[in-house]
Amino acid sequence: MLLKALEKNIRAGCLNLRMPDGTWHRFGSEPPEAYWYVNDPTMLTRLLRDPEYALGDTYLARGWDTEYGEGLRTLLQVLVRNFGQVQARGWSRLRELLYRWLMPRNGIARSQRQIEQHYDLDEWLFRRFLDREMFYSCAYFTRPDLSLEEAQQAKCELIRRKLLLQPGQKVLDIGSGWGGLAFYLATRAEVQVTGLTLSGEQWRVARQEAEKRGLAGRVQFLLEDYRQHRGRYDRIVSVGMFEHVGLRNYGAFFRQVEQLLAPDGVALLHTIGCSQTDGAINPWMRRHVFPGAHLPSLSQLAPAVERARLQVADLEVWRLHYAYTLREWFRRFQQVREEVVKRMGERFARLWEFYLAGCEAKFLYGDLVVFQVQMAKQHGPVPITRDYLGSASTLVP
Amino acid sequence: MLLKALEKNIRAGCLNLRMPDGTWHRFGSEPPEAYWYVNDPTMLTRLLRDPEYALGDTYLARGWDTEYGEGLRTLLQVLVRNFGQVQARGWSRLRELLYRWLMPRNGIARSQRQIEQHYDLDEWLFRRFLDREMFYSCAYFTRPDLSLEEAQQAKCELIRRKLLLQPGQKVLDIGSGWGGLAFYLATRAEVQVTGLTLSGEQWRVARQEAEKRGLAGRVQFLLEDYRQHRGRYDRIVSVGMFEHVGLRNYGAFFRQVEQLLAPDGVALLHTIGCSQTDGAINPWMRRHVFPGAHLPSLSQLAPAVERARLQVADLEVWRLHYAYTLREWFRRFQQVREEVVKRMGERFARLWEFYLAGCEAKFLYGDLVVFQVQMAKQHGPVPITRDYLGSASTLVP
Repeated sequence: MLLKALEKNIRAGCLNLRMPDGTWHRFGSEPPEAYWYVNDPTMLTRLLRDPEYALGDTYLARGWDTEYGEGLRTLLQVLVRNFGQVQARGWSRLRELLYRWLMPRNGIARSQRQIEQHYDLDEWLFRRFLDREMFYSCAYFTRPDLSLEEAQQAKCELIRRKLLLQPGQKVLDIGSGWGGLAFYLATRAEVQVTGLTLSGEQWRVARQEAEKRGLAGRVQFLLEDYRQHRGRYDRIVSVGMFEHVGLRNYGAFFRQVEQLLAPDGVALLHTIGCSQTDGAINPWMRRHVFPGAHLPSLSQLAPAVERARLQVADLEVWRLHYAYTLREWFRRFQQVREEVVKRMGERFARLWEFYLAGCEAKFLYGDLVVFQVQMAKQHGPVPITRDYLGSASTLVP
Repeated sequence: MLLKALEKNIRAGCLNLRMPDGTWHRFGSEPPEAYWYVNDPTMLTRLLRDPEYALGDTYLARGWDTEYGEGLRTLLQVLVRNFGQVQARGWSRLRELLYRWLMPRNGIARSQRQIEQHYDLDEWLFRRFLDREMFYSCAYFTRPDLSLEEAQQAKCELIRRKLLLQPGQKVLDIGSGWGGLAFYLATRAEVQVTGLTLSGEQWRVARQEAEKRGLAGRVQFLLEDYRQHRGRYDRIVSVGMFEHVGLRNYGAFFRQVEQLLAPDGVALLHTIGCSQTDGAINPWMRRHVFPGAHLPSLSQLAPAVERARLQVADLEVWRLHYAYTLREWFRRFQQVREEVVKRMGERFARLWEFYLAGCEAKFLYGDLVVFQVQMAKQHGPVPITRDYLGSASTLVP
């Protein structure tokens, strides 16, 4: 049955399947060539029953392998490209519906645990595959040949422009990570930045870094949930944090943004999203990589924004930028894979590389995008044309 | 009670109210000064009961007047600015809810009648207050000092860029009006344009104009509903028509766009919208000016786009551009007001000027905006930065 499904669906690219008994099957004929080595025949039935979940799970359990290095990327791209449009059904669909209905709300304590699970993985790992400023969100590749470092700077510069900052303004960064964006804005726009994070590791590293750079007077980091923070800000920015908020908290998130934002304020939300409503997040990814996460569609964002009486002032939709970012993270991760296996084991290395390559494939051939939603209150200060953003080619010096 | 409400709410601007017995009341103290002359005291009770509907209705019936010329604009702006945030309630709210539930679906015959009611008003009227190309939708004021003619050209040029046209492509213009955009695209981008309209008057004028300009080989106009049209197009554009589609047909509209659009197609929807869900359209306006109309919020657009499996590629939100456009239409209309009264009567002139000034006030101080939604299918040809749009300052030669 799996062979039949492959036979029927593989149209773009080519898949070479080696069964445990050494027999080969070939599907499709176009490049690129992907290789899929089945080690454990029971993975096939698991895959048929619940492909979305089982693909990652059987890889972790060494149920299958592929070519070293780039092989995993190619294989997942061929699979997503040809099966991406196949609607989830059966167990997959049922579990997703149940999850939506029964999904626990991410309370403050739960959010704290979820964030620790991922981001408190030690600094060592993230230093290995992120850029030197440790931006752990989509970079902006104004040209495909930018380095990851340049593309992350371009992203920060675009955000600075979208925030319409003036010197001395107070900026809140919800989900401040290792502090890179806060440092950028404080330095380039001479603003006061308050960063919120729930990760103790990130908090420790960011404060250390602020001291080292002599920015402690202009940037402060708090280990605090966005729901508990009080204050009033000229600008609010949130990059790569909204993915963790959870569908049931969207109302609370935007109400809080509205509360914290000055009447002539501007807010910018940067989040992975899904261009289809039923995309959500891969259940395996939610279980093993980002517990509690949900990727919003526009139809899920918009009602929450409107109910908070914020106005959407501009929306930019990025698609390939994250594919380029993930490709580079994957490349850097592969260079230190042996070290990772030594420190954290083969299973962890597999989890991490499947996560990076799988997401890249979904940004290339699936429904994943990045939304940059610029918001203001009524009569906000956003100009009437986009000329204040300048051209993308000027984002990198 | 009305006096109390004015006393309580007028904060910005100043309102001078003259009662039928000649007594004056003054509310607020800031400029601008608005004047409100009550002719018929029964209008006050009607206004209290149902302000959204009664304001226009009592003006039509000469229940009140204001200063000649710009007076109506100033008065409506002061009212919307100070009462815009007051939530609709009582009858207003109830009628709106009932309307949403009981609203008849705009079938093809009903749509035809609705469009005729507004757009078959004779060409003479529209020639008096529109620009020379007769664009009856929001212009793009890249600078506040542009002429209406220049700003309409800037709009067309921005649309041309967003459509990513290549010579020889087939373009569908849903709601083609008097043909101005079709002529612009056919001439500047060397594409083949098919325009659809439901207005016999617009159809007649547009075909005449195509002949006159020698564009009949490249542009064709059909008197046809978008739901009945069949074909396959590289690009689809719809400007200022979606307002008439009606909430219950949003699904059908985007499914039809998806059906008519080539796999590597681009579609651009340009529509008045509302930045809040409960804004919809003023019930008086829907009754007297645009029957069957509904102004979408993003939360109403997004689910319909997603279900049709189209992807939002970019969203630009315009706010003040339509206020500038309407100000200019109002000014031109006032210049020919006497002629209009002679041809169509005082009641019609009042209806038209209230419509123009009222909409301007809502774009200035209410929740009305224009959405330009660029859409594509998966893997569409939209570039990864916005540099292909160029700067707004280059939209006008």
